[in-house]
Amino acid sequence: MTVVGQMLETYPKDLGGVDRQKLQECIEACLECTQACTACADACLSEDMVAELTTCIRTNLDCADVCSTTGRVLSRHTGYDANLTRSVLEACAAACKACGDECAQHAEMHEHCRNCAESCRRCEAACRELISALG
Amino acid sequence: MTVVGQMLETYPKDLGGVDRQKLQECIEACLECTQACTACADACLSEDMVAELTTCIRTNLDCADVCSTTGRVLSRHTGYDANLTRSVLEACAAACKACGDECAQHAEMHEHCRNCAESCRRCEAACRELISALG
Amino acid sequence: MTVVGQMLETYPKDLGGVDRQKLQECIEACLECTQACTACADACLSEDMVAELTTCIRTNLDCADVCSTTGRVLSRHTGYDANLTRSVLEACAAACKACGDECAQHAEMHEHCRNCAESCRRCEAACRELISALG
Amino acid sequence: MTVVGQMLETYPKDLGGVDRQKLQECIEACLECTQACTACADACLSEDMVAELTTCIRTNLDCADVCSTTGRVLSRHTGYDANLTRSVLEACAAACKACGDECAQHAEMHEHCRNCAESCRRCEAACRELISALG
Repeated sequence: MTVVGQMLETYPKDLGGVDRQKLQECIEACLECTQACTACADACLSEDMVAELTTCIRTNLDCADVCSTTGRVLSRHTGYDANLTRSVLEACAAACKACGDECAQHAEMHEHCRNCAESCRRCEAACRELISALG
Repeated sequence: MTVVGQMLETYPKDLGGVDRQKLQECIEACLECTQACTACADACLSEDMVAELTTCIRTNLDCADVCSTTGRVLSRHTGYDANLTRSVLEACAAACKACGDECAQHAEMHEHCRNCAESCRRCEAACRELISALG
Repeated sequence: MTVVGQMLETYPKDLGGVDRQKLQECIEACLECTQACTACADACLSEDMVAELTTCIRTNLDCADVCSTTGRVLSRHTGYDANLTRSVLEACAAACKACGDECAQHAEMHEHCRNCAESCRRCEAACRELISALG
Repeated sequence: MTVVGQMLETYPKDLGGVDRQKLQECIEACLECTQACTACADACLSEDMVAELTTCIRTNLDCADVCSTTGRVLSRHTGYDANLTRSVLEACAAACKACGDECAQHAEMHEHCRNCAESCRRCEAACRELISALG
Protein backbone atom coordinates (compact mmCIF):
# COMPACT_ATOMS: atom_id res chain seq x y z
CA MET A 1 0.00 0.00 0.00
CA THR A 2 1.18 3.52 -0.67
CA VAL A 3 1.80 5.95 2.17
CA VAL A 4 -1.26 7.95 1.04
CA GLY A 5 -3.32 4.78 1.54
CA GLN A 6 -1.70 4.08 4.91
CA MET A 7 -2.46 7.58 6.14
CA LEU A 8 -6.10 7.27 5.07
CA GLU A 9 -6.35 3.89 6.79
CA THR A 10 -4.92 5.18 10.08
CA TYR A 11 -7.04 8.32 10.29
CA PRO A 12 -8.68 7.97 13.73
CA LYS A 13 -12.21 9.04 12.79
CA ASP A 14 -14.41 8.27 9.79
CA LEU A 15 -13.79 10.09 6.49
CA GLY A 16 -17.14 11.92 6.37
CA GLY A 17 -18.61 9.43 3.95
CA VAL A 18 -16.12 10.13 1.16
CA ASP A 19 -15.21 7.14 -1.04
CA ARG A 20 -11.76 6.18 0.28
CA GLN A 21 -10.48 4.64 -2.96
CA LYS A 22 -11.44 7.66 -5.08
CA LEU A 23 -10.03 9.99 -2.44
CA GLN A 24 -6.71 8.14 -2.43
CA GLU A 25 -6.51 8.16 -6.23
CA CYS A 26 -7.23 11.88 -6.33
CA ILE A 27 -4.62 12.76 -3.67
CA GLU A 28 -2.03 10.67 -5.52
CA ALA A 29 -2.94 12.26 -8.86
CA CYS A 30 -2.59 15.74 -7.31
CA LEU A 31 0.88 14.94 -5.94
CA GLU A 32 2.02 13.51 -9.27
CA CYS A 33 0.60 16.42 -11.25
CA THR A 34 2.12 19.04 -8.92
CA GLN A 35 5.54 17.60 -9.58
CA ALA A 36 5.03 16.97 -13.30
CA CYS A 37 3.89 20.57 -13.85
CA THR A 38 6.76 22.02 -11.80
CA ALA A 39 9.23 19.93 -13.80
CA CYS A 40 7.55 20.68 -17.14
CA ALA A 41 7.71 24.45 -16.49
CA ASP A 42 11.43 24.09 -15.87
CA ALA A 43 11.99 21.82 -18.88
CA CYS A 44 10.17 24.35 -21.10
CA LEU A 45 12.43 27.03 -19.65
CA SER A 46 15.45 25.04 -20.87
CA GLU A 47 14.18 24.60 -24.42
CA ASP A 48 15.81 26.74 -27.11
CA MET A 49 12.32 27.73 -28.25
CA VAL A 50 11.31 28.94 -24.78
CA ALA A 51 9.75 32.07 -26.32
CA GLU A 52 7.06 29.85 -27.86
CA LEU A 53 6.38 28.07 -24.56
CA THR A 54 5.60 30.97 -22.24
CA THR A 55 1.87 30.25 -22.03
CA CYS A 56 2.72 26.61 -21.32
CA ILE A 57 5.08 27.61 -18.50
CA ARG A 58 2.51 29.91 -16.96
CA THR A 59 -0.21 27.26 -17.10
CA ASN A 60 2.19 24.71 -15.63
CA LEU A 61 2.92 27.00 -12.67
CA ASP A 62 -0.76 27.64 -11.97
CA CYS A 63 -1.60 23.96 -12.27
CA ALA A 64 1.25 22.99 -9.91
CA ASP A 65 -0.01 25.45 -7.28
CA VAL A 66 -3.65 24.44 -7.57
CA CYS A 67 -2.86 20.69 -7.48
CA SER A 68 -0.60 21.16 -4.47
CA THR A 69 -3.32 22.97 -2.53
CA THR A 70 -5.94 20.42 -3.61
CA GLY A 71 -3.75 17.52 -2.43
CA ARG A 72 -3.46 19.23 0.95
CA VAL A 73 -7.16 20.00 1.32
CA LEU A 74 -8.01 16.39 0.41
CA SER A 75 -5.51 15.11 3.00
CA ARG A 76 -7.52 16.75 5.79
CA HIS A 77 -10.71 15.16 7.09
CA THR A 78 -11.29 16.90 10.44
CA GLY A 79 -14.35 19.17 10.28
CA TYR A 80 -15.01 18.02 6.71
CA ASP A 81 -16.79 20.62 4.53
CA ALA A 82 -18.20 19.13 1.32
CA ASN A 83 -18.89 22.55 -0.16
CA LEU A 84 -15.27 23.69 0.15
CA THR A 85 -13.95 20.34 -1.08
CA ARG A 86 -16.14 20.54 -4.18
CA SER A 87 -15.13 24.12 -4.91
CA VAL A 88 -11.42 23.29 -4.66
CA LEU A 89 -11.88 20.19 -6.84
CA GLU A 90 -13.66 22.29 -9.49
CA ALA A 91 -10.72 24.72 -9.57
CA CYS A 92 -8.30 21.81 -9.80
CA ALA A 93 -10.18 20.18 -12.66
CA ALA A 94 -10.18 23.56 -14.48
CA ALA A 95 -6.43 24.02 -13.94
CA CYS A 96 -5.67 20.46 -15.10
CA LYS A 97 -7.91 20.90 -18.15
CA ALA A 98 -6.18 24.14 -19.13
CA CYS A 99 -2.70 22.74 -18.59
CA GLY A 100 -3.46 19.39 -20.21
CA ASP A 101 -4.82 21.16 -23.32
CA GLU A 102 -1.83 23.48 -23.51
CA CYS A 103 0.78 20.76 -22.98
CA ALA A 104 -0.98 18.49 -25.48
CA GLN A 105 -0.26 21.08 -28.18
CA HIS A 106 3.48 20.61 -27.59
CA ALA A 107 3.36 16.86 -26.94
CA GLU A 108 4.71 15.80 -30.32
CA MET A 109 7.69 18.08 -30.08
CA HIS A 110 8.46 17.84 -26.35
CA GLU A 111 8.25 14.59 -24.43
CA HIS A 112 8.08 16.43 -21.10
CA CYS A 113 4.89 18.13 -22.33
CA ARG A 114 3.48 14.74 -23.37
CA ASN A 115 4.19 13.26 -19.93
CA CYS A 116 2.82 16.32 -18.22
CA ALA A 117 -0.35 16.36 -20.35
CA GLU A 118 -0.99 12.75 -19.31
CA SER A 119 -0.59 13.63 -15.63
CA CYS A 120 -2.98 16.55 -16.07
CA ARG A 121 -5.57 14.31 -17.78
CA ARG A 122 -5.32 11.73 -14.99
CA CYS A 123 -5.64 14.41 -12.32
CA GLU A 124 -8.56 16.11 -14.04
CA ALA A 125 -10.33 12.75 -14.33
CA ALA A 126 -9.62 11.91 -10.69
CA CYS A 127 -11.04 15.28 -9.58
CA ARG A 128 -14.20 14.78 -11.64
CA GLU A 129 -14.61 11.23 -10.31
CA LEU A 130 -14.34 12.51 -6.77
CA ILE A 131 -16.77 15.38 -7.40
CA SER A 132 -19.30 12.84 -8.67
CA ALA A 133 -18.71 10.63 -5.65
CA LEU A 134 -19.37 13.57 -3.30
CA GLY A 135 -22.90 13.53 -4.65
CA MET B 1 3.02 52.33 -3.44
CA THR B 2 3.21 48.75 -2.20
CA VAL B 3 5.49 46.25 -3.88
CA VAL B 4 2.40 44.45 -5.23
CA GLY B 5 1.43 47.71 -6.94
CA GLN B 6 4.96 48.24 -8.25
CA MET B 7 5.07 44.76 -9.72
CA LEU B 8 1.72 45.29 -11.47
CA GLU B 9 2.92 48.63 -12.82
CA THR B 10 6.15 47.21 -14.22
CA TYR B 11 4.58 44.17 -15.91
CA PRO B 12 5.78 44.53 -19.50
CA LYS B 13 2.53 43.69 -21.31
CA ASP B 14 -1.09 44.62 -20.63
CA LEU B 15 -3.01 42.85 -17.86
CA GLY B 16 -5.59 41.20 -20.11
CA GLY B 17 -8.20 43.85 -19.34
CA VAL B 18 -8.36 43.06 -15.62
CA ASP B 19 -9.06 46.05 -13.31
CA ARG B 20 -5.61 46.81 -11.87
CA GLN B 21 -6.85 48.34 -8.60
CA LYS B 22 -9.15 45.41 -7.81
CA LEU B 23 -6.44 42.96 -8.80
CA GLN B 24 -3.94 44.62 -6.48
CA GLU B 25 -6.41 44.66 -3.58
CA CYS B 26 -7.21 40.99 -4.10
CA ILE B 27 -3.55 39.93 -4.23
CA GLU B 28 -2.82 41.90 -1.06
CA ALA B 29 -5.89 40.44 0.68
CA CYS B 30 -4.75 36.91 -0.28
CA LEU B 31 -1.26 37.50 1.15
CA GLU B 32 -2.64 38.94 4.38
CA CYS B 33 -5.20 36.14 4.76
CA THR B 34 -2.64 33.40 4.08
CA GLN B 35 -0.54 34.67 6.96
CA ALA B 36 -3.45 35.40 9.29
CA CYS B 37 -4.84 31.88 8.82
CA THR B 38 -1.44 30.24 9.29
CA ALA B 39 -0.91 32.24 12.50
CA CYS B 40 -4.48 31.63 13.73
CA ALA B 41 -4.12 27.86 13.28
CA ASP B 42 -0.98 28.00 15.41
CA ALA B 43 -2.54 30.30 18.02
CA CYS B 44 -5.52 27.92 18.32
CA LEU B 45 -3.03 25.09 18.78
CA SER B 46 -1.59 26.93 21.79
CA GLU B 47 -4.92 27.52 23.50
CA ASP B 48 -5.71 25.35 26.53
CA MET B 49 -9.06 24.58 24.92
CA VAL B 50 -7.48 23.35 21.67
CA ALA B 51 -9.83 20.34 21.65
CA GLU B 52 -12.73 22.73 20.95
CA LEU B 53 -10.84 24.48 18.14
CA THR B 54 -9.96 21.58 15.85
CA THR B 55 -12.46 22.50 13.14
CA CYS B 56 -11.16 26.06 13.29
CA ILE B 57 -7.57 24.88 12.85
CA ARG B 58 -8.49 22.68 9.91
CA THR B 59 -10.41 25.48 8.20
CA ASN B 60 -7.51 27.88 8.85
CA LEU B 61 -5.08 25.48 7.17
CA ASP B 62 -7.29 25.04 4.11
CA CYS B 63 -7.88 28.77 3.81
CA ALA B 64 -4.16 29.53 4.11
CA ASP B 65 -3.37 27.09 1.29
CA VAL B 66 -6.15 28.29 -1.01
CA CYS B 67 -5.32 31.98 -0.44
CA SER B 68 -1.63 31.35 -1.07
CA THR B 69 -2.36 29.64 -4.38
CA THR B 70 -4.87 32.34 -5.36
CA GLY B 71 -2.33 35.10 -4.65
CA ARG B 72 0.14 33.29 -6.92
CA VAL B 73 -2.32 32.72 -9.76
CA LEU B 74 -3.36 36.39 -9.61
CA SER B 75 0.30 37.48 -9.72
CA ARG B 76 0.68 35.88 -13.16
CA HIS B 77 -0.63 37.63 -16.29
CA THR B 78 1.18 35.84 -19.11
CA GLY B 79 -1.27 33.76 -21.17
CA TYR B 80 -4.16 35.00 -19.03
CA ASP B 81 -7.08 32.54 -18.73
CA ALA B 82 -10.24 34.20 -17.35
CA ASN B 83 -11.94 30.85 -16.83
CA LEU B 84 -9.18 29.51 -14.58
CA THR B 85 -8.89 32.80 -12.69
CA ARG B 86 -12.63 32.79 -11.99
CA SER B 87 -12.59 29.17 -10.84
CA VAL B 88 -9.69 29.79 -8.44
CA LEU B 89 -11.35 32.96 -7.11
CA GLU B 90 -14.59 31.02 -6.46
CA ALA B 91 -12.67 28.43 -4.44
CA CYS B 92 -10.91 31.21 -2.53
CA ALA B 93 -14.16 33.01 -1.72
CA ALA B 94 -15.59 29.68 -0.49
CA ALA B 95 -12.54 28.99 1.69
CA CYS B 96 -12.60 32.53 3.14
CA LYS B 97 -16.35 32.28 3.80
CA ALA B 98 -15.95 28.97 5.62
CA CYS B 99 -12.98 30.17 7.66
CA GLY B 100 -14.48 33.59 8.38
CA ASP B 101 -17.69 31.96 9.65
CA GLU B 102 -15.79 29.48 11.80
CA CYS B 103 -13.39 32.06 13.28
CA ALA B 104 -16.27 34.47 13.93
CA GLN B 105 -17.74 31.90 16.32
CA HIS B 106 -14.62 32.16 18.49
CA ALA B 107 -14.04 35.89 18.02
CA GLU B 108 -15.34 36.95 21.40
CA MET B 109 -13.15 34.50 23.25
CA HIS B 110 -10.01 34.61 21.07
CA GLU B 111 -8.67 37.85 19.63
CA HIS B 112 -6.61 35.93 17.04
CA CYS B 113 -9.83 34.44 15.71
CA ARG B 114 -11.38 37.90 15.56
CA ASN B 115 -8.42 39.29 13.60
CA CYS B 116 -8.40 36.26 11.34
CA ALA B 117 -12.15 36.44 10.69
CA GLU B 118 -11.71 40.06 9.58
CA SER B 119 -8.92 39.09 7.17
CA CYS B 120 -11.11 36.31 5.79
CA ARG B 121 -14.03 38.72 5.30
CA ARG B 122 -11.78 41.22 3.49
CA CYS B 123 -10.33 38.50 1.27
CA GLU B 124 -13.72 37.00 0.47
CA ALA B 125 -15.02 40.47 -0.48
CA ALA B 126 -11.93 41.18 -2.61
CA CYS B 127 -12.38 37.86 -4.44
CA ARG B 128 -16.05 38.57 -5.14
CA GLU B 129 -15.23 42.12 -6.29
CA LEU B 130 -12.68 40.76 -8.70
CA ILE B 131 -15.01 38.03 -9.97
CA SER B 132 -17.59 40.74 -10.76
CA ALA B 133 -14.95 42.85 -12.48
CA LEU B 134 -13.96 39.89 -14.68
CA GLY B 135 -17.47 40.15 -16.14
CA MET C 1 9.07 4.21 -14.41
CA THR C 2 7.46 6.83 -12.16
CA VAL C 3 6.43 10.21 -13.56
CA VAL C 4 9.25 11.81 -11.53
CA GLY C 5 11.67 9.56 -13.37
CA GLN C 6 10.04 10.31 -16.73
CA MET C 7 10.30 14.05 -16.14
CA LEU C 8 13.98 13.74 -15.23
CA GLU C 9 14.62 11.64 -18.33
CA THR C 10 12.91 14.10 -20.66
CA TYR C 11 14.60 17.24 -19.31
CA PRO C 12 16.17 18.72 -22.44
CA LYS C 13 19.57 19.68 -21.02
CA ASP C 14 21.96 17.92 -18.66
CA LEU C 15 21.20 17.88 -14.91
CA GLY C 16 24.27 19.84 -13.82
CA GLY C 17 26.17 16.72 -12.84
CA VAL C 18 23.69 15.70 -10.13
CA ASP C 19 23.22 11.93 -9.60
CA ARG C 20 19.89 11.25 -11.32
CA GLN C 21 18.94 8.23 -9.23
CA LYS C 22 19.57 10.00 -5.93
CA LEU C 23 17.77 13.09 -7.20
CA GLN C 24 14.72 11.06 -8.18
CA GLU C 25 14.64 9.27 -4.83
CA CYS C 26 14.88 12.56 -2.98
CA ILE C 27 12.09 14.23 -4.98
CA GLU C 28 9.84 11.21 -4.42
CA ALA C 29 10.66 11.16 -0.70
CA CYS C 30 9.81 14.87 -0.45
CA LEU C 31 6.42 14.36 -2.14
CA GLU C 32 5.59 11.41 0.09
CA CYS C 33 6.69 13.21 3.25
CA THR C 34 4.77 16.39 2.38
CA GLN C 35 1.57 14.37 2.16
CA ALA C 36 2.29 12.15 5.17
CA CYS C 37 2.98 15.19 7.38
CA THR C 38 -0.12 17.04 6.16
CA ALA C 39 -2.24 13.96 6.85
CA CYS C 40 -0.56 13.27 10.22
CA ALA C 41 -1.22 16.85 11.41
CA ASP C 42 -4.88 16.34 10.57
CA ALA C 43 -5.04 12.88 12.14
CA CYS C 44 -3.50 14.28 15.35
CA LEU C 45 -6.13 17.00 15.27
CA SER C 46 -8.82 14.30 15.32
CA GLU C 47 -7.40 12.41 18.28
CA ASP C 48 -9.20 12.82 21.60
CA MET C 49 -5.82 13.59 23.19
CA VAL C 50 -5.09 16.43 20.72
CA ALA C 51 -3.90 18.62 23.60
CA GLU C 52 -0.89 16.32 24.01
CA LEU C 53 -0.10 16.39 20.29
CA THR C 54 0.22 20.13 19.61
CA THR C 55 4.00 20.06 19.21
CA CYS C 56 3.61 17.10 16.86
CA ILE C 57 1.05 19.00 14.75
CA ARG C 58 3.25 22.08 14.56
CA THR C 59 6.29 20.04 13.53
CA ASN C 60 4.18 18.19 10.95
CA LEU C 61 3.08 21.48 9.39
CA ASP C 62 6.62 22.84 9.20
CA CYS C 63 7.92 19.58 7.74
CA ALA C 64 5.15 19.48 5.12
CA ASP C 65 5.99 23.02 3.99
CA VAL C 66 9.75 22.49 3.90
CA CYS C 67 9.45 19.15 2.05
CA SER C 68 7.05 20.68 -0.48
CA THR C 69 9.45 23.51 -1.25
CA THR C 70 12.41 21.13 -1.40
CA GLY C 71 10.61 18.87 -3.87
CA ARG C 72 9.96 21.91 -6.07
CA VAL C 73 13.52 23.24 -5.92
CA LEU C 74 14.85 19.76 -6.78
CA SER C 75 12.44 19.54 -9.75
CA ARG C 76 14.14 22.54 -11.38
CA HIS C 77 17.45 22.18 -13.19
CA THR C 78 17.67 25.35 -15.29
CA GLY C 79 20.44 27.63 -13.98
CA TYR C 80 21.38 25.05 -11.34
CA ASP C 81 22.87 26.54 -8.15
CA ALA C 82 24.58 23.90 -5.97
CA ASN C 83 24.86 26.28 -3.03
CA LEU C 84 21.12 26.95 -2.88
CA THR C 85 20.27 23.28 -3.41
CA ARG C 86 22.52 22.29 -0.52
CA SER C 87 21.07 24.94 1.77
CA VAL C 88 17.50 23.86 1.06
CA LEU C 89 18.43 20.18 1.53
CA GLU C 90 20.00 21.00 4.92
CA ALA C 91 16.80 22.72 6.03
CA CYS C 92 14.76 19.75 4.79
CA ALA C 93 16.94 17.22 6.61
CA ALA C 94 16.56 19.33 9.79
CA ALA C 95 12.76 19.50 9.41
CA CYS C 96 12.50 15.75 8.74
CA LYS C 97 14.77 14.97 11.72
CA ALA C 98 12.67 17.14 14.05
CA CYS C 99 9.38 15.70 12.80
CA GLY C 100 10.65 12.13 12.68
CA ASP C 101 11.84 12.40 16.30
CA GLU C 102 8.58 13.94 17.46
CA CYS C 103 6.34 11.46 15.62
CA ALA C 104 8.46 8.55 16.82
CA GLN C 105 7.49 9.45 20.39
CA HIS C 106 3.84 8.81 19.54
CA ALA C 107 4.40 5.88 17.22
CA GLU C 108 3.32 3.19 19.64
CA MET C 109 0.07 4.92 20.42
CA HIS C 110 -0.78 6.36 16.99
CA GLU C 111 -0.22 4.44 13.77
CA HIS C 112 -0.39 7.63 11.70
CA CYS C 113 2.58 8.96 13.68
CA ARG C 114 4.46 5.70 13.07
CA ASN C 115 3.83 5.89 9.31
CA CYS C 116 4.74 9.57 9.27
CA ALA C 117 7.93 9.02 11.28
CA GLU C 118 9.00 6.43 8.70
CA SER C 119 8.37 8.87 5.83
CA CYS C 120 10.39 11.52 7.68
CA ARG C 121 13.28 9.10 8.22
CA ARG C 122 13.28 8.13 4.53
CA CYS C 123 13.17 11.75 3.45
CA GLU C 124 15.90 12.82 5.86
CA ALA C 125 18.11 9.97 4.60
CA ALA C 126 17.39 10.85 0.96
CA CYS C 127 18.32 14.51 1.61
CA ARG C 128 21.59 13.51 3.30
CA GLU C 129 22.41 11.08 0.48
CA LEU C 130 21.87 13.83 -2.07
CA ILE C 131 23.91 16.36 -0.07
CA SER C 132 26.81 13.86 -0.06
CA ALA C 133 26.41 13.27 -3.79
CA LEU C 134 26.60 17.01 -4.46
CA GLY C 135 30.18 16.79 -3.16
CA MET D 1 -0.60 47.95 13.13
CA THR D 2 -0.37 45.36 10.36
CA VAL D 3 -2.25 42.07 10.59
CA VAL D 4 1.10 40.28 11.02
CA GLY D 5 1.69 42.46 14.10
CA GLN D 6 -1.84 41.84 15.37
CA MET D 7 -1.44 38.09 15.04
CA LEU D 8 1.87 38.18 16.93
CA GLU D 9 0.30 40.31 19.67
CA THR D 10 -2.68 37.99 20.13
CA TYR D 11 -0.69 34.75 20.23
CA PRO D 12 -1.81 33.25 23.55
CA LYS D 13 1.58 32.07 24.85
CA ASP D 14 5.03 33.66 24.83
CA LEU D 15 7.06 33.65 21.61
CA GLY D 16 9.93 31.50 22.91
CA GLY D 17 12.15 34.50 23.56
CA VAL D 18 12.29 35.59 19.91
CA ASP D 19 12.51 39.38 19.30
CA ARG D 20 8.95 40.26 18.27
CA GLN D 21 9.87 43.29 16.16
CA LYS D 22 12.51 41.41 14.15
CA LEU D 23 10.17 38.45 13.78
CA GLN D 24 7.40 40.67 12.42
CA GLU D 25 9.75 42.38 9.98
CA CYS D 26 11.03 39.05 8.72
CA ILE D 27 7.54 37.57 8.22
CA GLU D 28 6.47 40.70 6.32
CA ALA D 29 9.63 40.63 4.20
CA CYS D 30 8.99 36.95 3.35
CA LEU D 31 5.41 37.68 2.25
CA GLU D 32 6.49 40.64 0.12
CA CYS D 33 9.37 38.70 -1.44
CA THR D 34 7.22 35.66 -2.20
CA GLN D 35 4.87 37.84 -4.22
CA ALA D 36 7.59 39.95 -5.86
CA CYS D 37 9.44 36.84 -7.04
CA THR D 38 6.25 35.18 -8.33
CA ALA D 39 5.38 38.36 -10.25
CA CYS D 40 8.94 38.88 -11.49
CA ALA D 41 9.10 35.34 -12.89
CA ASP D 42 5.91 36.05 -14.81
CA ALA D 43 7.06 39.49 -15.98
CA CYS D 44 10.31 37.94 -17.25
CA LEU D 45 8.20 35.35 -19.07
CA SER D 46 6.43 38.18 -20.91
CA GLU D 47 9.62 39.93 -22.02
CA ASP D 48 10.58 39.56 -25.68
CA MET D 49 14.06 38.58 -24.52
CA VAL D 50 12.74 35.76 -22.29
CA ALA D 51 15.47 33.44 -23.60
CA GLU D 52 18.04 35.56 -21.77
CA LEU D 53 16.04 35.53 -18.53
CA THR D 54 15.62 31.80 -17.91
CA THR D 55 18.07 31.67 -15.00
CA CYS D 56 16.31 34.69 -13.51
CA ILE D 57 12.92 32.97 -13.79
CA ARG D 58 14.21 29.79 -12.20
CA THR D 59 15.81 31.69 -9.31
CA ASN D 60 12.60 33.70 -8.85
CA LEU D 61 10.56 30.51 -8.57
CA ASP D 62 12.90 28.96 -6.01
CA CYS D 63 13.02 32.17 -3.99
CA ALA D 64 9.21 32.49 -4.00
CA ASP D 65 8.85 28.93 -2.68
CA VAL D 66 11.53 29.26 -0.01
CA CYS D 67 10.20 32.65 1.20
CA SER D 68 6.65 31.31 1.33
CA THR D 69 7.70 28.36 3.49
CA THR D 70 9.87 30.59 5.71
CA GLY D 71 6.97 33.00 6.28
CA ARG D 72 4.83 30.05 7.36
CA VAL D 73 7.43 28.52 9.68
CA LEU D 74 7.98 31.94 11.31
CA SER D 75 4.22 32.36 11.79
CA ARG D 76 4.15 29.30 14.06
CA HIS D 77 5.32 29.52 17.69
CA THR D 78 3.86 26.39 19.29
CA GLY D 79 6.64 23.94 20.21
CA TYR D 80 9.27 26.40 18.98
CA ASP D 81 12.47 24.76 17.67
CA ALA D 82 15.35 27.28 17.34
CA ASN D 83 17.45 24.82 15.35
CA LEU D 84 14.83 24.34 12.65
CA THR D 85 14.03 28.07 12.52
CA ARG D 86 17.72 28.87 12.01
CA SER D 87 18.10 26.25 9.29
CA VAL D 88 15.09 27.54 7.37
CA LEU D 89 16.28 31.15 7.74
CA GLU D 90 19.71 30.18 6.37
CA ALA D 91 18.07 28.62 3.30
CA CYS D 92 15.90 31.72 2.87
CA ALA D 93 18.86 34.08 3.10
CA ALA D 94 20.68 31.94 0.50
CA ALA D 95 17.68 31.97 -1.86
CA CYS D 96 17.23 35.74 -1.47
CA LYS D 97 20.95 36.33 -2.03
CA ALA D 98 20.94 34.23 -5.21
CA CYS D 99 17.76 35.86 -6.55
CA GLY D 100 18.79 39.39 -5.53
CA ASP D 101 22.13 38.95 -7.32
CA GLU D 102 20.49 37.56 -10.44
CA CYS D 103 17.75 40.21 -10.62
CA ALA D 104 20.27 42.99 -9.96
CA GLN D 105 21.99 42.04 -13.23
CA HIS D 106 18.79 42.89 -15.12
CA ALA D 107 17.76 45.87 -12.97
CA GLU D 108 18.80 48.54 -15.43
CA MET D 109 16.88 46.97 -18.27
CA HIS D 110 13.83 45.65 -16.41
CA GLU D 111 12.12 47.62 -13.65
CA HIS D 112 10.40 44.49 -12.34
CA CYS D 113 13.83 42.96 -11.75
CA ARG D 114 14.94 46.12 -9.93
CA ASN D 115 11.89 46.04 -7.65
CA CYS D 116 12.31 42.32 -7.09
CA ALA D 117 16.03 42.66 -6.31
CA GLU D 118 15.17 45.24 -3.64
CA SER D 119 12.61 42.90 -2.06
CA CYS D 120 15.18 40.10 -2.07
CA ARG D 121 17.77 42.35 -0.40
CA ARG D 122 15.30 43.40 2.27
CA CYS D 123 14.27 39.80 2.91
CA GLU D 124 17.85 38.55 3.03
CA ALA D 125 18.72 41.31 5.52
CA ALA D 126 15.64 40.54 7.65
CA CYS D 127 16.57 36.83 7.73
CA ARG D 128 20.14 37.59 8.79
CA GLU D 129 18.92 40.05 11.46
CA LEU D 130 16.64 37.39 12.86
CA ILE D 131 19.33 34.71 12.77
CA SER D 132 21.57 37.04 14.82
CA ALA D 133 18.74 37.73 17.25
CA LEU D 134 18.20 33.99 17.78
CA GLY D 135 21.67 33.96 19.40
